[in-house]
Amino acid sequence: MTDRSRLRCNALADRVMSAEDAASFIAPGDHLGMSGFTGSGHPKAVPAALVRRVTDAAERGERFAVSVWTGSSTAPELDGALAAVDGIDLRMPYQSDPVTRAKINAGLLDYVDVHLSHVARMVSDGFFGHLDAALIEVAGIAADGALIPSSSVGNNVTWIDVADRVILEVNSWQPGELEGMHDIYHGTALPGHRTPIQILGPSDRIGVPYLRCPLEKIIAIVPTHDADYSLPSRPADGDSELIAGHVVDFLTHEVRRGRLPATLPPLQSGVGNITNAVLAGLDGGPFPPLTAYTEVIQDGMLQLLRSGAMSVASATGFSLSEDGFAELHADIAGYHDRIILRPQEISNHPEVIRRLGCLAMNGMLEADIYGNVNSTHIMGSSMQNGIGGSGDFARNAYLAMFLSPSTARNGAISCIVPMASHVDHTEHDVHVIVTEQGIADLRGLPPRRRAQQIIDHCAHPDYRPALQDYLDRATVTGPGRHTPHLLDEALSWHVRYLREGTMRPH
Amino acid sequence: MTDRSRLRCNALADRVMSAEDAASFIAPGDHLGMSGFTGSGHPKAVPAALVRRVTDAAERGERFAVSVWTGSSTAPELDGALAAVDGIDLRMPYQSDPVTRAKINAGLLDYVDVHLSHVARMVSDGFFGHLDAALIEVAGIAADGALIPSSSVGNNVTWIDVADRVILEVNSWQPGELEGMHDIYHGTALPGHRTPIQILGPSDRIGVPYLRCPLEKIIAIVPTHDADYSLPSRPADGDSELIAGHVVDFLTHEVRRGRLPATLPPLQSGVGNITNAVLAGLDGGPFPPLTAYTEVIQDGMLQLLRSGAMSVASATGFSLSEDGFAELHADIAGYHDRIILRPQEISNHPEVIRRLGCLAMNGMLEADIYGNVNSTHIMGSSMQNGIGGSGDFARNAYLAMFLSPSTARNGAISCIVPMASHVDHTEHDVHVIVTEQGIADLRGLPPRRRAQQIIDHCAHPDYRPALQDYLDRATVTGPGRHTPHLLDEALSWHVRYLREGTMRPH
Repeated sequence: MTDRSRLRCNALADRVMSAEDAASFIAPGDHLGMSGFTGSGHPKAVPAALVRRVTDAAERGERFAVSVWTGSSTAPELDGALAAVDGIDLRMPYQSDPVTRAKINAGLLDYVDVHLSHVARMVSDGFFGHLDAALIEVAGIAADGALIPSSSVGNNVTWIDVADRVILEVNSWQPGELEGMHDIYHGTALPGHRTPIQILGPSDRIGVPYLRCPLEKIIAIVPTHDADYSLPSRPADGDSELIAGHVVDFLTHEVRRGRLPATLPPLQSGVGNITNAVLAGLDGGPFPPLTAYTEVIQDGMLQLLRSGAMSVASATGFSLSEDGFAELHADIAGYHDRIILRPQEISNHPEVIRRLGCLAMNGMLEADIYGNVNSTHIMGSSMQNGIGGSGDFARNAYLAMFLSPSTARNGAISCIVPMASHVDHTEHDVHVIVTEQGIADLRGLPPRRRAQQIIDHCAHPDYRPALQDYLDRATVTGPGRHTPHLLDEALSWHVRYLREGTMRPH
Repeated sequence: MTDRSRLRCNALADRVMSAEDAASFIAPGDHLGMSGFTGSGHPKAVPAALVRRVTDAAERGERFAVSVWTGSSTAPELDGALAAVDGIDLRMPYQSDPVTRAKINAGLLDYVDVHLSHVARMVSDGFFGHLDAALIEVAGIAADGALIPSSSVGNNVTWIDVADRVILEVNSWQPGELEGMHDIYHGTALPGHRTPIQILGPSDRIGVPYLRCPLEKIIAIVPTHDADYSLPSRPADGDSELIAGHVVDFLTHEVRRGRLPATLPPLQSGVGNITNAVLAGLDGGPFPPLTAYTEVIQDGMLQLLRSGAMSVASATGFSLSEDGFAELHADIAGYHDRIILRPQEISNHPEVIRRLGCLAMNGMLEADIYGNVNSTHIMGSSMQNGIGGSGDFARNAYLAMFLSPSTARNGAISCIVPMASHVDHTEHDVHVIVTEQGIADLRGLPPRRRAQQIIDHCAHPDYRPALQDYLDRATVTGPGRHTPHLLDEALSWHVRYLREGTMRPH
């Protein structure tokens, strides 16, 4: 059962057990810190066994639910399966699972949406209470007990550090060549003892390749051989390619104006179709060699590394399609020294992002005419996924760009609205907005001029006249002309959508 | 005319001239970078001469206006006088002047509200265009041409660095003993060349006590002897003392729970009555020796330094009453080694704030039931002052607290509302809200539980039932139960205030 090449520590041989036995260490009400970041490196077997415990308890008429803390999103077999049986009390800091989302928005599951760089320190500082157990996937255990991290690092350093007990899944599906790709920094400390994070470039290493855990804390080791969760690969659509084109043009222009070095600062890029298209656009662009200091390696970034357009990428995990994982595994030796996986506290650390001057590109749900961005809440109330690392990067980036098609739901929703129904990134933190219509460069502009840029360049033509009308009337009759709003109309577009299924004016 | 003890550089003797002559170097349309932070260290004579040029031009039927970039707020004789004659095209990054505010909200003056730590880098990076001239108050000029900074540092390093030409006011009202109190860091650089800011504690020095400017850039030197702008000193009111009491109790509790060290992390505190009351409360509290890593030294902080309850304070300027300035000047030798004035890029640097784990205490205009905070916009449209450094500190602080009385305008405005009419600090960045009613500790809580905390502990009893009713109905009938809102009612409290002069329910 046990792959000796993956479990090389004799002192731990007696902890090997089935997922069912390991799951028996988990009690109702526990706070569990799990590995996993955007579908990579999450535990696969013990959560399934935990689901069986939850359903068994339910059959006995007992409630069995736990708090699930992770790196970010996981996979259907973890988030989805546990949420489906109402096995989650509280979830943080990020999710993107449809079942979990439905439970959150039905009010059946508490969700705390946290900046990804803040999680580790808030837990270490005691803000979320006690962590009962850590459930961590690793790629292997070295002879001396050092843990070879899996395909994501996430908050694993912190979970292992603060949990009472640690359950490990050793996943032999993960390539053994992951060993050495990580840079695990154990130097974060409580206030009063913190020192500078000495990263001066994306390729800098400040830690060690292994996670460390006192052996006596490890109560169970479960061998697995299960694939990471892969996202379906969708070809870039027309809007994504238009957005990508605008971004590449803009960056080219900024280099020409001398406001960006020709070797662009490190890229940060969220996940999804649009950012993959932007990355593809950069592959053919005039900028190599690029670097990335980002959260996840997605297909587009792997392609840049493969083509040589990118020299090195720092992240905390992968978010790949099935083809992407196959490509990574097929040539992992070639990627070994060009991808560095760090704890998300470091991959998303404001100190490093500010120092390196990242170019941040993130998606959004909607922006208002003044440049306030909603990344999380559909119609102000329902959670989509979460803020993730977008705030970590946007606040401290050299350039903070937000990208979205100008409409959604076949044009029934305008992604440019009079007032955002929720704000995750304030006007102070949004430099550039890009839709398939064009680009609004908001830097240095006061609110009404920001509004005019966004309406003229980003709004869909179908909605542009109504937005202009709102701005014009608000400027004349609103209670103040700095950021003119008509408060009894400001959210009327959302109200109309909720009532009529469209934001389109009559 | 010239005080030789203040102007010790012979090579610059020929640049001494009247304020009128110096102002003649300023042209319509110029971008001017001025010294000044919350009423300390701003130029006093040349702006007045500039006002005369503006009014002379107006009499000739010509428009004369400039862009004014500063550290933060200045004084009536600068902001107020220039705004009154419509001499300002664009103002950034912060102001608190009633005349300027009125012009901004009448749509007659463009204002860009920027995180104070971001200004220097955005200007250096070229986001605001070219800086024509810097107008900087200094306390003196050393024999070798080194500039002895005045009572604030603000963005002076950057203004001198990027401006085409520099006009200095040498103010002999400023104590000569300011020499040596500053820590001027010239090490910030463009992305790709930045290194860690090596500050590990509030008293650390990483720079030199002087501003440096190539002598050939200095085109005018104007001797002055004028007081800084002092705020009227108001005795603490009952609400402020109640808020202060809640804060001190909370911090005491956190120390007892082991979530804060007994020697509190460095304090950051905004200006105003409430924070002065909190600082007074800490003076009698169980915590000495305190430190501060903050933006301004206000009366309350000076008192802590005087009493010995605070060992050292790092800031970028002063915000003092007339008595406060008198006290500072009377015992400046005693404060000399315990106050460090830094560029605001450093005093407010996210890297340092996160490392030190500051306790951030800032005022607010309103918070909504989910903990989104509005610091800037009255009824969503009119600018009050600006975000200042509150975002720099709140985002990266160990604990981010926002303080306000629960009502304003004799109870006609509830500072706790269903939805904030503008968001400067998102739910992700707000840990604790305090009103005279009590304290809401939002850490680790999902939205509906945050709302219950805020309604129960912070809202005024007159508004509590209506807020509870909103939350309850939104939870049942809203479009989603994660952050339940009724979008057609969410801003109705503000609309009612604008129509009827009160938010009180009928």
